[in-house]
Amino acid sequence: MADMEEQDLIAAGSASIYDEDGGFKSEFLDKVKAALAAGDAEGVIELAGALHESDLGALLVALDSDQRLRLVELMGPHFDFAALTEIDANIRDEILEELPNRAVAEGVRELESDDAVTLLEDLEPEDQAEILGALPPIDRAQLQRSLDYPEHSAGRLMQTTFVTAPPYWTAGQAIDVMRDADEADLPDSFFEIFIVDPAHRLLGTLFLDTLLRARSTTLLQDIMSSDRRRVEVTEDQEDVARVFERYNLVSVAVVDEGERLVGVITIDDVVDVIQEEADANLKALGGVSESEELSDTVWWTTKSRFVWLFVNLITAFVASAVLGLFEGSLQKMVALAVLAPIVASQGGNAATQTMTVVVRALATRELSHSNATRVLWREIFVGALNGAAFGVLTGVVAGYWFGLAGIGVVIALAMLTNLVAGALGGILIPRILDHFDIDPAVSSSAFVTTVTDVVGYGSFLGIATLWFSLG
Amino acid sequence: MADMEEQDLIAAGSASIYDEDGGFKSEFLDKVKAALAAGDAEGVIELAGALHESDLGALLVALDSDQRLRLVELMGPHFDFAALTEIDANIRDEILEELPNRAVAEGVRELESDDAVTLLEDLEPEDQAEILGALPPIDRAQLQRSLDYPEHSAGRLMQTTFVTAPPYWTAGQAIDVMRDADEADLPDSFFEIFIVDPAHRLLGTLFLDTLLRARSTTLLQDIMSSDRRRVEVTEDQEDVARVFERYNLVSVAVVDEGERLVGVITIDDVVDVIQEEADANLKALGGVSESEELSDTVWWTTKSRFVWLFVNLITAFVASAVLGLFEGSLQKMVALAVLAPIVASQGGNAATQTMTVVVRALATRELSHSNATRVLWREIFVGALNGAAFGVLTGVVAGYWFGLAGIGVVIALAMLTNLVAGALGGILIPRILDHFDIDPAVSSSAFVTTVTDVVGYGSFLGIATLWFSLG
Repeated sequence: MADMEEQDLIAAGSASIYDEDGGFKSEFLDKVKAALAAGDAEGVIELAGALHESDLGALLVALDSDQRLRLVELMGPHFDFAALTEIDANIRDEILEELPNRAVAEGVRELESDDAVTLLEDLEPEDQAEILGALPPIDRAQLQRSLDYPEHSAGRLMQTTFVTAPPYWTAGQAIDVMRDADEADLPDSFFEIFIVDPAHRLLGTLFLDTLLRARSTTLLQDIMSSDRRRVEVTEDQEDVARVFERYNLVSVAVVDEGERLVGVITIDDVVDVIQEEADANLKALGGVSESEELSDTVWWTTKSRFVWLFVNLITAFVASAVLGLFEGSLQKMVALAVLAPIVASQGGNAATQTMTVVVRALATRELSHSNATRVLWREIFVGALNGAAFGVLTGVVAGYWFGLAGIGVVIALAMLTNLVAGALGGILIPRILDHFDIDPAVSSSAFVTTVTDVVGYGSFLGIATLWFSLG
Repeated sequence: MADMEEQDLIAAGSASIYDEDGGFKSEFLDKVKAALAAGDAEGVIELAGALHESDLGALLVALDSDQRLRLVELMGPHFDFAALTEIDANIRDEILEELPNRAVAEGVRELESDDAVTLLEDLEPEDQAEILGALPPIDRAQLQRSLDYPEHSAGRLMQTTFVTAPPYWTAGQAIDVMRDADEADLPDSFFEIFIVDPAHRLLGTLFLDTLLRARSTTLLQDIMSSDRRRVEVTEDQEDVARVFERYNLVSVAVVDEGERLVGVITIDDVVDVIQEEADANLKALGGVSESEELSDTVWWTTKSRFVWLFVNLITAFVASAVLGLFEGSLQKMVALAVLAPIVASQGGNAATQTMTVVVRALATRELSHSNATRVLWREIFVGALNGAAFGVLTGVVAGYWFGLAGIGVVIALAMLTNLVAGALGGILIPRILDHFDIDPAVSSSAFVTTVTDVVGYGSFLGIATLWFSLG
């Protein structure tokens, strides 16, 4: 019987609405759409009312844009605004802009402060002001303070409701106080309490499991953790994420310049930051803006990708200009025109391998001056070894193809040269950009492939011109 | 005064040993190295004994390989083996292999079960057996069971010590039992307790903050969470990570086929999985093996990168063969040889943009059949628009360069063709690979650039041959 009930509970939850690919089952989606089309509020609430905020967010994304607004309106107070924090910013802002500000304010009231900030931070200043104006004064002041911190700072990420206690309380006292506290004064969920002095300066932290295990007469100051990691409220969210990763934290206290406790950041928000950062790295290396989303319009996407392609076009013309220098040689021996792209392409790929490893290692701080020289030499050796291997391979094939041993020798030498150049470019360019505080993920690959195109064409045609006396 | 003490505490912690770039300060590193060289155990313990396991791990990485072993030996029982879980697998395995198995067993005894599994899983079977044999029977049985689960499964990730309670206990009873429990029977830290039936089947979970807030006479079954998310012990770690991300979890229960509770996975282990996955994606797109580390040897790195470069060499020859088809045209008009790489390169870059977005969206499940058609059309339109823009741009420049308007028209048409082909290739190839359960991140880019090289050279030289009647 117990088993049956469990199965039912899972079935009523998220398991049943998704298919194997992680998309919504079409029958579920069809039912929701039908209820929306019929304006059947009860039906919509029955289908979507019990969904976890993340599932509700996923449902919004799966709907067409007019159906999204309809869903929010029909669900009324049953719509959990936290769902909007789980979806991409384009869709969120579209929904929020079309909803009346009063409805948004109602929804925001129910949220934790960090979720409320996520909802409000991208809105037009007038809308933001109107929504804040409709909130109770304390909430308004708290949110306003969070919104005043710089974008991507710890202050935007933190929750401003947390539990504090003075160091001279006993464990039993602390438990009693929490038991009698008003629900509204406590966060929805918390893992630790913060021990502060009368000026609200952070003295230590205490995990709930430590509190539970302590005798009731033990003083909090005797069991609190004195190794009190904290972050400053203005610190960048990526640095915050680094602290969480490095020290396997679940939550961290946020303090202002005066060491006063102002908030707490929990791991779930940091997981999003880590994902965003990895995403940004990947997209940057692929030549895509880090803010590009699947929901962007054709026009926006075209413009944003144009910039990167334009940079590449210039580098492609530079490479072509190198080919142009050897027009005479190409005229005399057309095989060179056929083979030259192989040298350039192989160098470009080898350099991309090196660059990928280096960019990632710079992002995760694995590459620092203590191992930089070792890594540089490793890359040069790898480039030389693979350059030699592919030089021989390509040389033999090219020699047979054009029935000319000389061309095999020339391409082999050019290949070796270009793979070593690629290794050098792949490691030095990101490091130099990083040194000047330019994001190496965004800008390395155009420079790196310019190096391998120029060196590839130049060395192959240069050596060929000398070897066959084509000059 | 309080402030002074705090500063000192931070200074004694991690803040003082790192410089601004996140590497160790050289004076700290020099002191450690000097103490190691002098065999000064006390000095080493003074410098490194109080470090957080992550900092101790970072210190190991920063040392030379013979110094690493020396540090572990000199620190003796003061060395926290958890540090070894924080460093890359090459360095960990090197240290563990050189240490006597008895010393490793001593260290493993002090660890949480999930950390112990991380240490043991890559060791030689004989070493593993010997270390397990030196452990107390209960620890040994637990570890052996975890090691029996498949690699990358929830079973390898989970911790096997957790806190359970029957549903009919009161909140007060639960707190009393935890307070009186033997330290060794409780995990080092925990956030929730699991409510199980007599057969150890999971009935619900209860966060500690809920427990603390409850009246002491409340029954656990009345406050436990019935929305009990759990994962199966054989589930893949990436699916586990997806559940954590989607539902913002801090920990999750792991159950076997009989719904019996066998372990708990906490977010800190999942953060590592998320990082690894993002890393794997990025490296795969860059043509690097996902297991490549900065600490790999030249020889290993060369071999592993060779494979990818070899695939690329074949595709480069295919592209060259297309050029070879038009040898006659190239002979008659060498300008074509100079310009052809521009068309191919621009198409390759546009296709890489599309592919990057698609591969990432497939990995995060943002792309599913519900939005696939919309995304396909978006990419085609973006390709056509940028193709037209760059067609005109390149056409004008090329026409002026070679003083021949016709060549501008030809390159413009080829550019448009190739950017649309790139968009199609960039989206369809990853989706087809994904459909056949081949990791699109690993294998897409070779196929995609083959498409843009072949279409780029083929369309440009084909159109040129017709336009100028070069055939």
